[in-house]
Amino acid sequence: MRVDVVHNVAKLNDMMAAQIRAELHRRGIFTLNLISSPGSGKTTLLQKTLEMLRDEVRQAVIVGDLATSLDACRMADLAPAVQINTDGGCHLDAAMVRNALDTLDLDGVELLYIENVGNLVCPVGFDLGQDVKVGLLSVPEGEDKVAKYPRLWREADVVLLNKIDLLPFAYFNRAKFFADLSQVNAMLPVIEVSATRGDGLEKWCEWLLRARTEAMASV
Amino acid sequence: MRVDVVHNVAKLNDMMAAQIRAELHRRGIFTLNLISSPGSGKTTLLQKTLEMLRDEVRQAVIVGDLATSLDACRMADLAPAVQINTDGGCHLDAAMVRNALDTLDLDGVELLYIENVGNLVCPVGFDLGQDVKVGLLSVPEGEDKVAKYPRLWREADVVLLNKIDLLPFAYFNRAKFFADLSQVNAMLPVIEVSATRGDGLEKWCEWLLRARTEAMASV
Repeated sequence: MRVDVVHNVAKLNDMMAAQIRAELHRRGIFTLNLISSPGSGKTTLLQKTLEMLRDEVRQAVIVGDLATSLDACRMADLAPAVQINTDGGCHLDAAMVRNALDTLDLDGVELLYIENVGNLVCPVGFDLGQDVKVGLLSVPEGEDKVAKYPRLWREADVVLLNKIDLLPFAYFNRAKFFADLSQVNAMLPVIEVSATRGDGLEKWCEWLLRARTEAMASV
Repeated sequence: MRVDVVHNVAKLNDMMAAQIRAELHRRGIFTLNLISSPGSGKTTLLQKTLEMLRDEVRQAVIVGDLATSLDACRMADLAPAVQINTDGGCHLDAAMVRNALDTLDLDGVELLYIENVGNLVCPVGFDLGQDVKVGLLSVPEGEDKVAKYPRLWREADVVLLNKIDLLPFAYFNRAKFFADLSQVNAMLPVIEVSATRGDGLEKWCEWLLRARTEAMASV
């Protein structure tokens, strides 16, 4: 009984996500779903990305959070941003994104970022209508998060390894990180960044613009 | 309809947790439920605690994980340890703990640690039959996790601020951390530790033994 209910909710989510994706493509908008643990640096990464690409593409942001609007405030100067307050909910779903889209000025927008709730587990199962899933891991979390939370890395289109400025101080086995990642998803591109210091952000922005071009060409 | 189902599941969980708590108290076992993001240092903290208290109390561990048994392996030399593999599930529940208890040798055990799945959201809502909830935050996650994930800090009996060895290198506003925490839960004790370097672990062990003595005196 419980399984049936959950199953129907998941099916409903997928249907709604497909509608969102179709509408965003019609408007020429490429969308990414950014997933990580709490405190891996999603918001800082987005702030820096918004700054770096502001002259190249028109951008907008949807931010999921449990209880505050701290993250949307951090980005509102840089691009249209709307906060989804999940009121304790552990992930975003397509219905929340649908509502957020209705309050966001999407006119001319080419790149839409969805920052999911900080959680390595639950967000992975919910299609939000994105083109790509971006998995973010930060150095101080440890390389064992690849083996322990495999589903995100299996489904991601790219992985960002953030906070590489902490590599000299934190316990992180870089060789094991790459070995475990290739076990889980051999073709997965990895970009090493420090969102605060700036390392790797050019490469990340290039990846992003290329992914957008490829995705929109095949729409 | 969906609300009813979830409501009944939650009620069932609470009933089962109350039974577990009563049984553990009958056996003289004090239990803690350790909750944090992925990569905050739960397992390292437990390894060090097991070592420090091994001559004082008999200990056992239940470890929740999505897909591996890495964490239980890291502790099995130090105490009886059993891994609950949630197969993708984002938190432990009382039924999982019930099953784990049946496979664990609890003879003479006085202190039982339950390491929850790495997740700041979902584990908070599920009573596992513990005496105390321990919330762990690590410095590189940032002090804003207090305001953004308030429920854990509201319900916790103690907070450990881990990885203080990274304070000189990471972005963490210690004053704001304490201010926000006192807003959410004014009486919450905070212990600053570095599980890898050893800072604060004596204080943590003292807190733990005192909490055990107090809890068991009132049973």
